Amino acid sequence: MTTKMTKRQFLQSIGAAAGVAAVYRSMNALGLVGANTAQAATLDLSPGSGGGKSVVILGAGISGLVAAYELSKADYDCTILEATNRAGGRNLTARGGDIIREEDSRQWVGFDPEEHLYANLGPARLPHHHTTILGYCKEFGVDLEVFTNDNRAAFFHNLEGFDGKPVVARQVMTDTRGYLAELLAKAVHRTALDDVLAGEDKERLLDLLRSYGDLDVADDLYTGSDRGGYQGEQVHAGLAPGEVNDPLDFSQLLSSDFWEYKLHFSQFLDQNPTLLQPVGGMDAIVDAFEERLEHLTRYRSIVKEIRKTADGVRIVYRRRRRRGLSILDADFAICTIPAPVLKDISNDFSADTQAAIESIEFSNAVKIGFQARRRFWEEDHGIYGVISWTDQDITQIWYPPYGYQRAKGIIMGAYIWDDEPGLRYAAMSPAERLQTAIAEGEALHPGYEAEIEAGVSRAWAKVRFQRGGWPTSYQAPARLREPDGAIYFAGDQLSALPGWQEGAALAAHAAVRAINERVTATA
Amino acid sequence: MTTKMTKRQFLQSIGAAAGVAAVYRSMNALGLVGANTAQAATLDLSPGSGGGKSVVILGAGISGLVAAYELSKADYDCTILEATNRAGGRNLTARGGDIIREEDSRQWVGFDPEEHLYANLGPARLPHHHTTILGYCKEFGVDLEVFTNDNRAAFFHNLEGFDGKPVVARQVMTDTRGYLAELLAKAVHRTALDDVLAGEDKERLLDLLRSYGDLDVADDLYTGSDRGGYQGEQVHAGLAPGEVNDPLDFSQLLSSDFWEYKLHFSQFLDQNPTLLQPVGGMDAIVDAFEERLEHLTRYRSIVKEIRKTADGVRIVYRRRRRRGLSILDADFAICTIPAPVLKDISNDFSADTQAAIESIEFSNAVKIGFQARRRFWEEDHGIYGVISWTDQDITQIWYPPYGYQRAKGIIMGAYIWDDEPGLRYAAMSPAERLQTAIAEGEALHPGYEAEIEAGVSRAWAKVRFQRGGWPTSYQAPARLREPDGAIYFAGDQLSALPGWQEGAALAAHAAVRAINERVTATA
Repeated sequence: MTTKMTKRQFLQSIGAAAGVAAVYRSMNALGLVGANTAQAATLDLSPGSGGGKSVVILGAGISGLVAAYELSKADYDCTILEATNRAGGRNLTARGGDIIREEDSRQWVGFDPEEHLYANLGPARLPHHHTTILGYCKEFGVDLEVFTNDNRAAFFHNLEGFDGKPVVARQVMTDTRGYLAELLAKAVHRTALDDVLAGEDKERLLDLLRSYGDLDVADDLYTGSDRGGYQGEQVHAGLAPGEVNDPLDFSQLLSSDFWEYKLHFSQFLDQNPTLLQPVGGMDAIVDAFEERLEHLTRYRSIVKEIRKTADGVRIVYRRRRRRGLSILDADFAICTIPAPVLKDISNDFSADTQAAIESIEFSNAVKIGFQARRRFWEEDHGIYGVISWTDQDITQIWYPPYGYQRAKGIIMGAYIWDDEPGLRYAAMSPAERLQTAIAEGEALHPGYEAEIEAGVSRAWAKVRFQRGGWPTSYQAPARLREPDGAIYFAGDQLSALPGWQEGAALAAHAAVRAINERVTATA
Repeated sequence: MTTKMTKRQFLQSIGAAAGVAAVYRSMNALGLVGANTAQAATLDLSPGSGGGKSVVILGAGISGLVAAYELSKADYDCTILEATNRAGGRNLTARGGDIIREEDSRQWVGFDPEEHLYANLGPARLPHHHTTILGYCKEFGVDLEVFTNDNRAAFFHNLEGFDGKPVVARQVMTDTRGYLAELLAKAVHRTALDDVLAGEDKERLLDLLRSYGDLDVADDLYTGSDRGGYQGEQVHAGLAPGEVNDPLDFSQLLSSDFWEYKLHFSQFLDQNPTLLQPVGGMDAIVDAFEERLEHLTRYRSIVKEIRKTADGVRIVYRRRRRRGLSILDADFAICTIPAPVLKDISNDFSADTQAAIESIEFSNAVKIGFQARRRFWEEDHGIYGVISWTDQDITQIWYPPYGYQRAKGIIMGAYIWDDEPGLRYAAMSPAERLQTAIAEGEALHPGYEAEIEAGVSRAWAKVRFQRGGWPTSYQAPARLREPDGAIYFAGDQLSALPGWQEGAALAAHAAVRAINERVTATA
């Protein structure tokens, strides 16, 4: 029993014979379920509380996987129906040899077969406060490493400002702080704020500003700082300090769009350091769930109808390579199908449920991964990890926050979420997308095209069973937090964390908890 | 030839028979020297330019190792004299079972024997712009991972401010920005800065401030922000956003010492993200050099005299377990011995050389590593990686930026560099240091003591052949940049990057270049 297939087959045989709670206990005995659950990831439903009640889960994305995992542990009889041939949903990691399908295209991924040559085309970050999804990582023993998000060596680029030349982040940040501190110090000296600065606060504020902005001691002016780096190829002081960089022009800093959010991106709660990622690709999380739930999953099973029955739900679905339609009856359903897909599936939903589903709009997120023949961002610019910014459609370039100093690397040549540029890229053929993204990238990295040897794109709006990246609103419709008959709703679309796996997991927990309360109340 | 010892013995045998350039060529053939040198780490001296000239290198710290490595490649006949039984100098990683020696103490390290349970008691960070030392990592295939340095979940703690309670970094940073933006916006509205804000800059500055500080749209006031996190145990928005944290009191923020440098620590050039570290401990760099230079190194060889001779240098040293003194004559010497040690060694230096050496003062750096029985910082606080700050002597607590979510962890319970607290801790016995650091840590982590199961301290001022952490001045004495006869000086003490391995490597390069120019000019 040393190979994965053997273990899997073993678990499937138990599942068939004795139900999923038995499988879970067996996995526990096999050491597949981590012992350390100090971080509250699971719901801790009472063992056996499901009493064999059946739940059909629509969609094997993170929300569906979490729901099935938790319900199975509590002795619910779960079946997952998944339209595609894989679990994970938008959690998708592309590697050499993969086929990436959209409605009207198929891309073969031409990356080299190396461990560090992959692209997370869906979620890529795990914020440190997303304790639910991090808790599953811990429970399953998914190794984590840091996702860099604030990289002072990366570039800010604006077609209009600074002659269209990329500017190093450390200079933008240092100089903006310096100028703000200088202006505020000036206002304080001019006694413009005396009425709102009590007693000693005035002197203390000046001390803070001198330190915050690195102002000149003599006159509280900002004239540049070694925090912005030294002139020449060598950024640091070296053997004997040289000249620090001249400060950027304040008017140009103001008229660039850097300040819009790029300047303080890591101030956003979800982008706060520390961010983490699974070693080897985000789909390590999917793999961990799938290993535990594969025996419950029917792949290539496309839901055609969602019906309420007298004592539960009926799902009509089409299974690939089977003639006609299949039917699955269950006591409950948890529907994680993305709203843009769900709204077109035949159903018995109440009018307000259907309206709520139709009210959810999804973003046109696009990601493009390129394999570069050398890690020019590290070698030439000392850029280790994410992000450079531009006001072109590609929005961002991500340098891989893994595989540092290896021979090649996968950069994210575009990460688009705004509607219009997203639509523009979605409308292109895969080949056009790569070409266009390379042309835009040239503005940040002259000679870019010559460094690229393979590419793959993902326009989530054009993915058959997704039709978008994530809900554009942070307010999920309240109606969908309640079941419609025996049908419960989940997915990140039900949370205030759209596009985050944490939101998907929390929505799954909410649905599971609601079902379990109903079952245990009537038991 | 599959074991390390065999390879090592093989190289030693070549070294004895055919000189070090032959060893280097053999290592190249064995694949021990990395092929990728795109990042300019090495000096690229012309092969054979040393012509067998002899160089004695005093000290097997990073500077000595770099010098010996570069000289050997160019056919210089190098010998390294190292006072201790190991290479690395201040690059020291403590693991379970190690003995940590100081002048009047020996500590046995009681950490568990796990790969992720180590403490870098010397340097721990590699800034992304330290291209020389990073270049060696690349050349030697030393795997790198990110060193987190800016952690918004960590604590700021001040005995006086905020009732002595630790405050989460994200709140300190968010609220400080908010208040500064509000004050500056107010000054702008009051037309106090009209003369220095040209035309459209005024409106643009207000736009920037609203975004920078997350000001209320209606009145440009700061009343808190979701960037500071939500109330309750769940930091983020979850299923439905709750209440954001109340902003901290501005007067208390001003009267705390947070603003002194803690608030913008990652703005400092050397602390700029991205920072890196070798996987498995900083001494991976030492190991890589040592593997290549061991056959040139005489360990436990304490330099007693440094003499100028008619045609070079004479080093008199005492070798452990040998009677009397040993003598080594060479064409040149590179002396990397730390100034506080070097100044007391008998020598022929000119008066100004000796005065320059005596002018260098070293810091009293102290580090304390603790093994914790569980990763309470991650489990209880979502703190993944470095740093919490306090105004107590321990100065910082570092949570390990590696081994995330594993069973146990090594935290740095103190990282002290200021003179007075450093001296206080250096004067204590190892047991007292641990006890005192734990007591101080309790202010940040109530119940701290119960989490700790082993500890080790390093007071660099009390280390026999170091006598300090690093030079307190960023201006190395110019006199030591020139040789005194055939004696050249190196070490980070010769650079404007004191305490950084990059400075040590650059100083080594400078000495090597100077010797090589002298040799090739006269050849």
